[in-house]
Amino acid sequence: MDSRLYERILRVARGEKPAETLLVNARVVNVFSGEVTEASVALEGGYIAGVGDYRQGGRVEDLKGAYLAPGFIDAHVHLESSMVRPAEYARAVVPRGTTTVVSDPHEIANVTGAAGIRYMLEASEGLPLEVLVNLPSCVPASHLSTSGARLTAADLLPFLEHPRVLGLAEFMNVPGAVSAAPDAAEKLLAFRGRPIDGHAPGVSGKTLAAYVAAGPWADHESVTPQEALEKVRAGLYVFLREGTAARNLEDLLPVVGPATAPRLAFCSDDRHPAELLGEGHVDQMLRLAVAGGVDPLLALRMATLSAAEAFGLRDRGAVAPGRLADLVALSDLESFGVEAVWFRGRKVAAGGDLLVEEAPAAGEEAVRDTVRVDLERVDLAVPLGRGKMRVIVAREGQLITGQELLEPRAGDGLALADPGRDLAKLAVVARHGRGGYAVGFVRGLGLERGAIAGSVGHDSHNLTVAGMDDVSMRTALRALAQAGGGYVAALGEEVLELLPLPIAGLMSDRPIEEVRRRMDALLEAAHQRLGARSRDPFMQLAFLPLEVIPSLKLTDRGLVDVDSFELVDLWVDSD
Amino acid sequence: MDSRLYERILRVARGEKPAETLLVNARVVNVFSGEVTEASVALEGGYIAGVGDYRQGGRVEDLKGAYLAPGFIDAHVHLESSMVRPAEYARAVVPRGTTTVVSDPHEIANVTGAAGIRYMLEASEGLPLEVLVNLPSCVPASHLSTSGARLTAADLLPFLEHPRVLGLAEFMNVPGAVSAAPDAAEKLLAFRGRPIDGHAPGVSGKTLAAYVAAGPWADHESVTPQEALEKVRAGLYVFLREGTAARNLEDLLPVVGPATAPRLAFCSDDRHPAELLGEGHVDQMLRLAVAGGVDPLLALRMATLSAAEAFGLRDRGAVAPGRLADLVALSDLESFGVEAVWFRGRKVAAGGDLLVEEAPAAGEEAVRDTVRVDLERVDLAVPLGRGKMRVIVAREGQLITGQELLEPRAGDGLALADPGRDLAKLAVVARHGRGGYAVGFVRGLGLERGAIAGSVGHDSHNLTVAGMDDVSMRTALRALAQAGGGYVAALGEEVLELLPLPIAGLMSDRPIEEVRRRMDALLEAAHQRLGARSRDPFMQLAFLPLEVIPSLKLTDRGLVDVDSFELVDLWVDSD
Repeated sequence: MDSRLYERILRVARGEKPAETLLVNARVVNVFSGEVTEASVALEGGYIAGVGDYRQGGRVEDLKGAYLAPGFIDAHVHLESSMVRPAEYARAVVPRGTTTVVSDPHEIANVTGAAGIRYMLEASEGLPLEVLVNLPSCVPASHLSTSGARLTAADLLPFLEHPRVLGLAEFMNVPGAVSAAPDAAEKLLAFRGRPIDGHAPGVSGKTLAAYVAAGPWADHESVTPQEALEKVRAGLYVFLREGTAARNLEDLLPVVGPATAPRLAFCSDDRHPAELLGEGHVDQMLRLAVAGGVDPLLALRMATLSAAEAFGLRDRGAVAPGRLADLVALSDLESFGVEAVWFRGRKVAAGGDLLVEEAPAAGEEAVRDTVRVDLERVDLAVPLGRGKMRVIVAREGQLITGQELLEPRAGDGLALADPGRDLAKLAVVARHGRGGYAVGFVRGLGLERGAIAGSVGHDSHNLTVAGMDDVSMRTALRALAQAGGGYVAALGEEVLELLPLPIAGLMSDRPIEEVRRRMDALLEAAHQRLGARSRDPFMQLAFLPLEVIPSLKLTDRGLVDVDSFELVDLWVDSD
Repeated sequence: MDSRLYERILRVARGEKPAETLLVNARVVNVFSGEVTEASVALEGGYIAGVGDYRQGGRVEDLKGAYLAPGFIDAHVHLESSMVRPAEYARAVVPRGTTTVVSDPHEIANVTGAAGIRYMLEASEGLPLEVLVNLPSCVPASHLSTSGARLTAADLLPFLEHPRVLGLAEFMNVPGAVSAAPDAAEKLLAFRGRPIDGHAPGVSGKTLAAYVAAGPWADHESVTPQEALEKVRAGLYVFLREGTAARNLEDLLPVVGPATAPRLAFCSDDRHPAELLGEGHVDQMLRLAVAGGVDPLLALRMATLSAAEAFGLRDRGAVAPGRLADLVALSDLESFGVEAVWFRGRKVAAGGDLLVEEAPAAGEEAVRDTVRVDLERVDLAVPLGRGKMRVIVAREGQLITGQELLEPRAGDGLALADPGRDLAKLAVVARHGRGGYAVGFVRGLGLERGAIAGSVGHDSHNLTVAGMDDVSMRTALRALAQAGGGYVAALGEEVLELLPLPIAGLMSDRPIEEVRRRMDALLEAAHQRLGARSRDPFMQLAFLPLEVIPSLKLTDRGLVDVDSFELVDLWVDSD
């Protein structure tokens, strides 16, 4: 810290100099003592100088009895899932009280490698939101799919020089981690002493012990309170996730208590424009937690101090002297209505709107034009095999899929989609200029006709398409290739709706409201024109290739049985 | 970490290799969840590999239902106050369950500077106790006394390379810190990001805000629960102190609760052989806390995880996979009887005895022969002045002194000691080859005759002597000079008892039991032969020169009014 600023802060703290900004009549939320105290808060040079009986300020803001809490922290998020640039993301979440996100540019890194990480760092510079970065640990997620890049420990370590880079992001390669496989061990040992975020869905017992001993500090994949408690007991920080696809928060609330709250935080992981604009962000998680019976002061600790502690961030997470002046004024501790937000001492949002205009300049050349496919070489037909088909079962609101063995609907020697059984054909087509494609079947999307497709297909983000006929599927794939990525709904030769995502095939260059409208239009087309019955078939679709989440997935290399972690044949001959 | 060890730990965690040591039938204290669970604990290569259903071990220890807790952490201690070498200190505290101490070699650094820090690091190498070091931040404590060394930020920073050095120790220069005085600001800014321990007795309100904003992370000087709570609220970790001189723990217990426990830890600060051997260490603080109504699991969290978190030590403080195998087996959670202690996976104590023999080799040349005084130049006579005398009032069990204005007892034109009013003469004589001496008066030691003296005189550790006649006082000073330091009781020309402390005038080279016996003999001589009425007049004496603790102190430069932080005259002419 600059010594002149340091001196200024101390003079304000001592009451010898008026604060730059003085917040008066605040009910200050103290996350250290679990109390609310009435006080003024003196801000200077982006920091909190003091909390107490301060009277002078260059700018005095009367909070009129509003609660003043530390700015909220999202402990784990992929900004790419907002489908907008970081500045647009900030415009959505900062007015909701979020001032720090611990992000993992895993999606864009899978498409464009280190260039994607650099882009996200540049594009989040100077925002009224601190975008901290954990480095993607598993690019590619595994050898069972074809991603756009491969990042080794040596590729990642130079990023540690960046002031906003913390450590290593969600370490998804659980088998590699627990067995000290060379690639995994190399990364985990190289980052020892720096924050290492984990990703261990359903892992328990001795495997969990090995996983924790291998290095990760945290996990955000718990789906039951028992799983969360076991992870807390094992020493992991547990982030309660409430995303768009994975909504685990309410299920996990039983794990929250005075003893565990210091080891728990909130995260969104993946949240789409509709939920960001409609439901909110960490503010919504606070509402859910308190509505579910959690003490509001424990909930606020989790949303602030506990998240900061999880990553060793001693400069934030509390309304206390010397901490960063990232603050949020709340109407009450039930609806958590955000009245105003300060970032580094500057009022940046009020009444739901951002008050500042920030347009970070980040070159986008390296992250555009990333859909490179030759659709002429793709044949979607599935010849009939012997026996039954391994069919992926998609479930609403869950990343975990089931699997079933089903008889094919046969025609012309081919296995066909079957709307009567909600059985769609599914294809994943590599789009990074290498790799192949694979075709399978999925139940649970609820399509009646046509096709939906996207260039968002976790984690390799190849083109993923599901449909009831090959013509519609090809139409959808062609539209994506032409747009440089996006989401699309097609029927026959007609493109019904298209949301272009030209930045890495993951993000739009348009305002978040427009992206939401286009996404709404896509959903409406899927529901009205294609008869889709699930709430968000695009979201379901995007996770069908994710070969690190159980139990049956499809990548460009084929069907993956996640439990055995190997490619399996579509056909199972039960004889 | 060595990758082969890493692999081994993970194999044990997965249950694929028998643990080096397996602890079975343990009631494992989980400080993350605040629970006790029955489990086995697998240890490998100094680490905990797993907690759960482990069955195989090279060495299997049946804990027979004993509680198994993380090894205890003393969050702030001056090892020099044990008056023995670090190896002897370990012999006393490890069988009590302590496996980590965060030490501040402040005392020896005031005598011998950087050489003293190096000595403490070397002398604590290879012990069955991790002696972590915070670097003395205030050598000298102030400009108002003459110490043996001066340590600047530039002197301290190279020590950060040492793996057992954490950061900066108790920052006592509160006026310097809060006003960003150059010397203070330089150190605090240089150590930003590393642990900075605080020392702010009685500091509150805006001064506390400035102090916290200046950088310290923690404080151990609270004497009331109100003071402790204010410091917790301000973001400081608060260490509840139970030393030999300062016994604050029971007074502070009201601050302990589920919300605050993660921000509270225990520390001994200064503890003498008699208390270490008789009462114990952190185990005794746990007993006191639980006897005072604190939930045993909260108390254990404070003694372990909270202390680790205060210093950002993620490798210990819990019985969990991947953490250091520093463990303590306890009979129950009320008496906290320590049945056995493991340090880095090795059983190092059982039934109150150390099981291992460690004799670290540390050269002592640089820290011996440190009493350099010319007593011929010291004149203890105090000529009568005008008005009344400022008299220090020593209080049993407190470092804070009072002050009174008293009429002198006059004789031959001199001010004399006056046993009838418990008024002793007090002298502080610089002993580092430079500086002077000063003479004043003290009430509250309860001496009737003779003199007591010591080379332990916080923090500059000059010779400090109190007595009822100048002959006894000179005898005492001479004995200290000849012994190279120590504690002494003298009557007339006779040395009644002497405890030599040849290492920096602070520590003995003898076993701790012998030091205790000698100290007991000194106390008996003081009580029986000199009529002393206070419990430990030597302890009181040692803090009378400490010019950073209110309110009136005596250094070799004269009487210090701590509140105004300036030298004041002995005589106050009230006309």
